[in-house]
Amino acid sequence: MELSNTTTRKIIKYDGDGPREMWDTIATELPLTLKVGGEEFATIVCSPSDLRELVIGFLASEGVIRSPGQIASLDIHEDTGFAYVELKGSLTANRSDYSKRFIGSCCGKSRQFYFHNDMLTARTVMTRTRMPAASCIRLMRQLQEGSDDFRSTGGVHNAAIGSEGGLLAARTDIGRHNALDKLFGYCLLNNLRVSDKAIAFSGRLSSEVVLKAAKIGCGILLSKSAPTDLALRLAEDLGITCVGFIRGGEMNVYTHHERIDFER
Amino acid sequence: MELSNTTTRKIIKYDGDGPREMWDTIATELPLTLKVGGEEFATIVCSPSDLRELVIGFLASEGVIRSPGQIASLDIHEDTGFAYVELKGSLTANRSDYSKRFIGSCCGKSRQFYFHNDMLTARTVMTRTRMPAASCIRLMRQLQEGSDDFRSTGGVHNAAIGSEGGLLAARTDIGRHNALDKLFGYCLLNNLRVSDKAIAFSGRLSSEVVLKAAKIGCGILLSKSAPTDLALRLAEDLGITCVGFIRGGEMNVYTHHERIDFER
Repeated sequence: MELSNTTTRKIIKYDGDGPREMWDTIATELPLTLKVGGEEFATIVCSPSDLRELVIGFLASEGVIRSPGQIASLDIHEDTGFAYVELKGSLTANRSDYSKRFIGSCCGKSRQFYFHNDMLTARTVMTRTRMPAASCIRLMRQLQEGSDDFRSTGGVHNAAIGSEGGLLAARTDIGRHNALDKLFGYCLLNNLRVSDKAIAFSGRLSSEVVLKAAKIGCGILLSKSAPTDLALRLAEDLGITCVGFIRGGEMNVYTHHERIDFER
Repeated sequence: MELSNTTTRKIIKYDGDGPREMWDTIATELPLTLKVGGEEFATIVCSPSDLRELVIGFLASEGVIRSPGQIASLDIHEDTGFAYVELKGSLTANRSDYSKRFIGSCCGKSRQFYFHNDMLTARTVMTRTRMPAASCIRLMRQLQEGSDDFRSTGGVHNAAIGSEGGLLAARTDIGRHNALDKLFGYCLLNNLRVSDKAIAFSGRLSSEVVLKAAKIGCGILLSKSAPTDLALRLAEDLGITCVGFIRGGEMNVYTHHERIDFER
């Protein structure tokens, strides 16, 4: 059974003229529990699309793998909500580091960038790539125009990778970080060169999002939303160009503006 | 030193006429590590306001305490980012349950509602309270009008509790769940009767948000955003009235519509 990112449901719509029943489209939320080498590793609540990319991107982001080649087998059972991963080697990082992975400045419980796994995986981005300001604005517009799931449910986030020429791939999820992990998995599975590209993201730029960009290895991070101060301090350290509030023809460049070409 | 929820920073604004430097207001992100009885329990990345309420709401939400009276001492050191909690008793729940707490459907890594601690803390809400549709719309408008931090930074979420008469208290945080935990802490510290009130929330209604409402004990959950299907299934089970997309004079009622009075 292939699950969809959305489902329909009867709701009561109220608009001042009184209530009326109608059908509405709602984002699906799937709990996926990851077992690595037989042991429960994490439960990811996600949209059901691109689960293979999600698992690979998540494991890479957590520092469990560096490339998909380190995975011996990956079985995903959507119906029961389990993913079984066997590695070619054993889990090398200390389990107690993983127990601190828990997470997510958007949810408030976060592994900090000074935690062990982040130190291993979040590298400083050294690329000298530059991107025209007009391309940043175009990539964000393409991201928003391309999201059918968002338009129909209002409930998902989008992450995409693109170059001056336009978007190359976009991934969607109800979880901000899942969308980025799916994109990470896509880049790894396709051996995509990311250092000359930009990530376009629909959500806020928190410290965790900047960390993900550094782990993916992409030096330009675009968003229609706001950043936090910790994210920006981290972006300065990690060499990430943060651009926020890309709306209409405007944008704010917060860090490493040398990568933005304002003349084009 | 008292930290503020926002800080200022020099940015480059680009609007088609070219770039110019200006000062901007940015949301602060503070990592706060909780030590309970000397042991590291969790790291919460949050806005620095109302930290005492945050810690108490978080511990109650995790099932560590049922009331603030179970805390022997709570010392918060904003400057170093540590909060030290001593309980009157010992941690009763199994540590391995806590190790699964790690969370947050908005970030993707979630303890499910079938996990041990949630079963203890997320009670079915039985209240027969009703609220006029017009009050739901008014509460959400008040929440949005009242958020100075959001207007200036675009980077925080708000959670408030209110009755037919209007909002009673609102809390703000960069983390969706933190805003709700601060509100939970406020309700506990002030012994607020919540069963006849509504929670107004600026973020999406994920399963985790519905669980928080059930833990707080509030039967009506209002949002300007979208719900997920898992959140709605959970809301049906837990007796929570979910109202979403409250925008202008319109709203969608998803579950337990018997609590909404459409005539007023």
